[in-house]
Amino acid sequence: MHRTKVKVVEEALDANNTIARANRADFDRAGVKVVNFMSAPGAGKTTLLEQVVSDLPGVRVGVLEGDVQGSMDADRLASHHVPVTQLNTDPSFGGECHLDANMVRSAVPELPLSEIDLLIIENVGNLVCPAEFRVGEDVRVMATSVTEGEDKPLKYPLMYRTAELVLVNKIDLLPHLEFDMDRFLYNLDQVHPDVERMLVSGRTGEGIGAWRDWLGRLAAGSGAVTGLPQEAMA
Amino acid sequence: MHRTKVKVVEEALDANNTIARANRADFDRAGVKVVNFMSAPGAGKTTLLEQVVSDLPGVRVGVLEGDVQGSMDADRLASHHVPVTQLNTDPSFGGECHLDANMVRSAVPELPLSEIDLLIIENVGNLVCPAEFRVGEDVRVMATSVTEGEDKPLKYPLMYRTAELVLVNKIDLLPHLEFDMDRFLYNLDQVHPDVERMLVSGRTGEGIGAWRDWLGRLAAGSGAVTGLPQEAMA
Repeated sequence: MHRTKVKVVEEALDANNTIARANRADFDRAGVKVVNFMSAPGAGKTTLLEQVVSDLPGVRVGVLEGDVQGSMDADRLASHHVPVTQLNTDPSFGGECHLDANMVRSAVPELPLSEIDLLIIENVGNLVCPAEFRVGEDVRVMATSVTEGEDKPLKYPLMYRTAELVLVNKIDLLPHLEFDMDRFLYNLDQVHPDVERMLVSGRTGEGIGAWRDWLGRLAAGSGAVTGLPQEAMA
Repeated sequence: MHRTKVKVVEEALDANNTIARANRADFDRAGVKVVNFMSAPGAGKTTLLEQVVSDLPGVRVGVLEGDVQGSMDADRLASHHVPVTQLNTDPSFGGECHLDANMVRSAVPELPLSEIDLLIIENVGNLVCPAEFRVGEDVRVMATSVTEGEDKPLKYPLMYRTAELVLVNKIDLLPHLEFDMDRFLYNLDQVHPDVERMLVSGRTGEGIGAWRDWLGRLAAGSGAVTGLPQEAMA
């Protein structure tokens, strides 16, 4: 007797991942690498982008800017002469606290995919929910500011755990804080052992070269950030 | 002919507000004033509480500590000899990014309501969702750190708009930042004109006396923070 193995297609129930895959397929077809860039509010994501978006030799960058309201960050980035698309999560009530795959899907027709090599999606400032929703990205980068304290990886583990790169920002303020970097890095390794990390200052430019090079390698599809499996989206 | 006016009971559909009212009724019955204390991650809520919880003459303080995971903040506060109850929003996946009325409801039996005058609920660090959920509080206080930048009231307006008091924290770092306080206060007034605000430093203690006095007046049911209508919960 012939027996058919029934495969439980659990993920088919997850609409977000289904749409994230569709986004990813569109990005792959256009040859565009995609970064999902996340952090708490005020950790300095926009400044860290301003430092690099117009200074990546041979890489055409586009930005998809996610905010609850307004377009202040988009305006800042547009002044650097890169194409910026604004996505507001909801101007009516409190607004969604994260981007999801469907929101990004709605923006895909507005993205100049044929004119860019690298799309950076700046997520809503929030350490919790953005990490729960894949949007079709190749990699996840998070910024964390030393002003937030050493304990954040332990209190908000999912985001630190699912990031491929952690930018530890505002290190220019270290002389004025009681921040214990060794303790922070120890906590980071507790939730994501050996995750790539860079100590940077969006203000002074310290460490920015490494961040820029990392994005360059990503766009070129080579170096440390290659080999991220499609399955990482599950 | 007799005509009956049909009253649309829109709010009856809002389970969160229904439960928040039940919490509020319990707190009122026990004579306990309740603060919903909110901020972005790392804005300094716990430090601002450590500065005052054991130093409010004649006011017995209790804390309900909301976190995605862990009890680090609760442990810090318990060392100040006040009763602390920990509420974790979800240790399994990413966790809820806010407290809601039902989560607080589940903690009510654990709270020493007959032994306290003032309950401070330290919400999950997040500038978006916590503002969307009343939990039964009398007042909302938010902490905002000068390290987060001047634009935050415009980017996350709901929380600033629904707070009765805004604590502008980490002012000891002002000499080391390009933070424009006038610009920040202008932005704050755009979303919540004339909301009460205090410039404070949890680290140096600057401005903490005013924050302590404010809580004392709240617990005593007098002064600037009285007269908050029950309807404010809607």
